[in-house]
Amino acid sequence: MFGNMGDLSEMLKGFEQQAQSLKDELAKKTFSVKSGGGMVELTLNGNGEVIDLNIDDELLSDKDSLQILLIGAINDANKMVQQNQQQSAMGMLGGMNPFGGSK
Amino acid sequence: MFGNMGDLSEMLKGFEQQAQSLKDELAKKTFSVKSGGGMVELTLNGNGEVIDLNIDDELLSDKDSLQILLIGAINDANKMVQQNQQQSAMGMLGGMNPFGGSK
Repeated sequence: MFGNMGDLSEMLKGFEQQAQSLKDELAKKTFSVKSGGGMVELTLNGNGEVIDLNIDDELLSDKDSLQILLIGAINDANKMVQQNQQQSAMGMLGGMNPFGGSK
Repeated sequence: MFGNMGDLSEMLKGFEQQAQSLKDELAKKTFSVKSGGGMVELTLNGNGEVIDLNIDDELLSDKDSLQILLIGAINDANKMVQQNQQQSAMGMLGGMNPFGGSK
């Protein structure tokens, strides 16, 4: 089904390089998510690493609300990061042409 | 380079089905991460959705430590989920044989 294995390994190498440069690009991006009208603010980079978290003092006296708002912020942030990763990966794959010769 | 497009679309359809069943499997798995010797405990499913969060009352009087321990727990948990997703995907890809006929 595939022409020859050489093309395939060449293609996979290309994928790996593109994936690494994509990861570097994503590391520079930041996403900020707020919940509870800003009482919790979570900042992540494009690889989903949390780089900052701010909790309003008021929440320190209401642990249940604090936990609920944190769970909401983390899940919203992870969804945003995953969507962005998928779009970036699609953009990357669109740029590559697995059908053309790579030599 | 590819034999014919029919094989490719068949293969992609197979990937999609496998990816969906993988996602369903991951949703059933849970991961629990503790930081600060258990003062913060975060539970996620295999798709990275937070399903539970417990914060020790003691941390409510030390916001800086609370925020640091939360950031640590979230990042550890996301790493664990990503590694598990990659292993599961590798296992899934290993099960498929893109070179063999799929009819």
